[in-house]
Amino acid sequence: MTRSFSLAVIPGDGIGPEVVAEATRVLDEVARIHDVTFEQTPYVLGAEHYIETGEVISDATLAEIRGHDAILLGAIGGKPGDPRLPAGLLERNLLLRLRFELDHYVNLRPTKTYPQVDSPLRDADGVDFVVVREGTEGPYVGNGGRLRADTPHEVATEVSLNTAFGVERVVRDAFTRAQARRKKLTLVHKTNVLVHAGAVWSRIVDAVAPEFPEVAVDYLHVDAATIFLVTDPARFDVIVTDNLFGDILTDLAGAISGGIGLAASGNINPDRTAPSMFEPVHGSAPDIAGQGIADPTAAIGSVALMLDHLGLPEAAAQIDRAVAADITARSGRRTTKEVGEAIAARVAGDVPGE
Amino acid sequence: MTRSFSLAVIPGDGIGPEVVAEATRVLDEVARIHDVTFEQTPYVLGAEHYIETGEVISDATLAEIRGHDAILLGAIGGKPGDPRLPAGLLERNLLLRLRFELDHYVNLRPTKTYPQVDSPLRDADGVDFVVVREGTEGPYVGNGGRLRADTPHEVATEVSLNTAFGVERVVRDAFTRAQARRKKLTLVHKTNVLVHAGAVWSRIVDAVAPEFPEVAVDYLHVDAATIFLVTDPARFDVIVTDNLFGDILTDLAGAISGGIGLAASGNINPDRTAPSMFEPVHGSAPDIAGQGIADPTAAIGSVALMLDHLGLPEAAAQIDRAVAADITARSGRRTTKEVGEAIAARVAGDVPGE
Ligand SMILES: CC(C)[C@H](C(=O)O)[C@@H](O)C(=O)O
Ligand SMILES: CC(C)[C@H](C(=O)O)[C@@H](O)C(=O)O
Repeated sequence: MTRSFSLAVIPGDGIGPEVVAEATRVLDEVARIHDVTFEQTPYVLGAEHYIETGEVISDATLAEIRGHDAILLGAIGGKPGDPRLPAGLLERNLLLRLRFELDHYVNLRPTKTYPQVDSPLRDADGVDFVVVREGTEGPYVGNGGRLRADTPHEVATEVSLNTAFGVERVVRDAFTRAQARRKKLTLVHKTNVLVHAGAVWSRIVDAVAPEFPEVAVDYLHVDAATIFLVTDPARFDVIVTDNLFGDILTDLAGAISGGIGLAASGNINPDRTAPSMFEPVHGSAPDIAGQGIADPTAAIGSVALMLDHLGLPEAAAQIDRAVAADITARSGRRTTKEVGEAIAARVAGDVPGE
Repeated sequence: MTRSFSLAVIPGDGIGPEVVAEATRVLDEVARIHDVTFEQTPYVLGAEHYIETGEVISDATLAEIRGHDAILLGAIGGKPGDPRLPAGLLERNLLLRLRFELDHYVNLRPTKTYPQVDSPLRDADGVDFVVVREGTEGPYVGNGGRLRADTPHEVATEVSLNTAFGVERVVRDAFTRAQARRKKLTLVHKTNVLVHAGAVWSRIVDAVAPEFPEVAVDYLHVDAATIFLVTDPARFDVIVTDNLFGDILTDLAGAISGGIGLAASGNINPDRTAPSMFEPVHGSAPDIAGQGIADPTAAIGSVALMLDHLGLPEAAAQIDRAVAADITARSGRRTTKEVGEAIAARVAGDVPGE
């Protein structure tokens, strides 16, 4: 029996299509080996599509995307300062709309260091943690407004919304992941200043903790967490945090592990009421787009996260091994395609269970 | 004529009193050299005071503090998890209350690297920037609440308030500082997600920029800013940002420049309608309190910022030179007092204008 999965593929802008091409190359290899089919439906969305059509994403397209088993996304975002693109429009109306409407409440972002990759840190040995970033509430809800806009008397608000429901489900997910890993969970927040939201996060971590007696729990203010990410990143196992803090910490985490060219992510709906979406943490990098030099590793790693979510953990592990081996063997500059081919070849040569 | 300044001194908790003792040692030296008098009035405030009296700070005490020319503060905060201290109480009702009521809208935090100090970064050469952090609004206003608190249906909000008035005055201050330095200003925000607040910050930076035609302006999302702080921190000159992002970036900045034991800060009211407050960025560090091993450099650097604000720039520069020389000569562990004495001796030996 050939298992079959239907994928919505959104290459997006800038280097997005280039890295997605290599991600699907590796996916094809996995399909061949494991006798699985991935039916891929491309969706042309992003800056160019918006400029041409005046539409970010239609309800009909969103409904169609919802019908797939998973979404693979490259990157969204035009050239900075392009006057045809209102600031934040694509981010909010496409990327965040997908995350919110498809209830991607677990934004999973693993970080690992490899001795061969240049970290800006003197000591980045043995770093291996995942950030479980809440994906559907917090300061990202878009709630707020502008009073007396564009006058000297303007007042602008941003309202962070935090619900016990929303916090509990992501905290529970994080505990489950910690239990399956090194059994350490760090809550990151700013409870001493953001006392209302902080109270919900703290009390729910405290309430869920007894269900996971083997997991050691600690807490860091977000400012202190950034310090430890550069002075002692190996201390972390699972970090659970809100949408905005997670955004900041995962870019920093990508940087210390040798560049966000390696940072994969999953926007996961653990309840499977809608397809989950997998994408590199990096953006569309218009400055290097079209040159074929973007590193597709993060996109390929995102495929591994997708396969894991789709119930193909052995295929996911194969990709992870291939990526690790490729990183270890790296020397000199390679094109996007060379990296994709090298990793695909390693997947092909990988003997499962070896 | 002997100039005289009256200072409110709040040693506070943990290592606060230890580092303040060294800061005032250096201040005494400056007073002697420059024929200035600093009348110091100590205020016992902080965790212990709250536990003993049940009061954080009385209105009468605050009114008294308001009468001084400046405030020197050590650190505020009890032992983490002490059940007698509600989370965030001292931070909000003392530290933030002082910053807000005394209108400290410029939270000034310089970062410099010295070759002799161990940075966690491989390359931290030539880093010399200041963060101008907004100090009186943003997500720090305490606005928000909890609906159905402690139930599964809880909703908690945090409201970030941003006014054109508040943003413009801090942006103008930042431009002025950039003009007097290397003429580069970086706005850090998250305008693509926090679109309402982001719009105010962006438009005001754009509006003020033409008044400073020599200052080159750029913009970074906060997540990207953390990347550059570890991959290329020397690129920054003046960063202007909101209260929360400034909190995060300055702890990270402290870490990359060799530890927040060196990071000084000023909570400045440039309009001089109330005294400004100078404090190390670090906290009360209860784990090492009472051992006489805390590094007083940040507290001493805060005295330099204070002297500059009080119109004694040459005295401030003397301390900065003494601190730089001390850091350059560092070897082995020294006690808090040894560091304070060493820096005071260098100030004494410093020939102004040499
Ligand atoms: C593009 C932006 C909206 C997005 C975010 O802030 O979540 C990005 O930075 C990320 O981390 O995926
Ligand atoms: C103690 C806390 C309220 C404070 C802040 O968040 O501003 C501190 O972290 C700082 O940076 O001075």
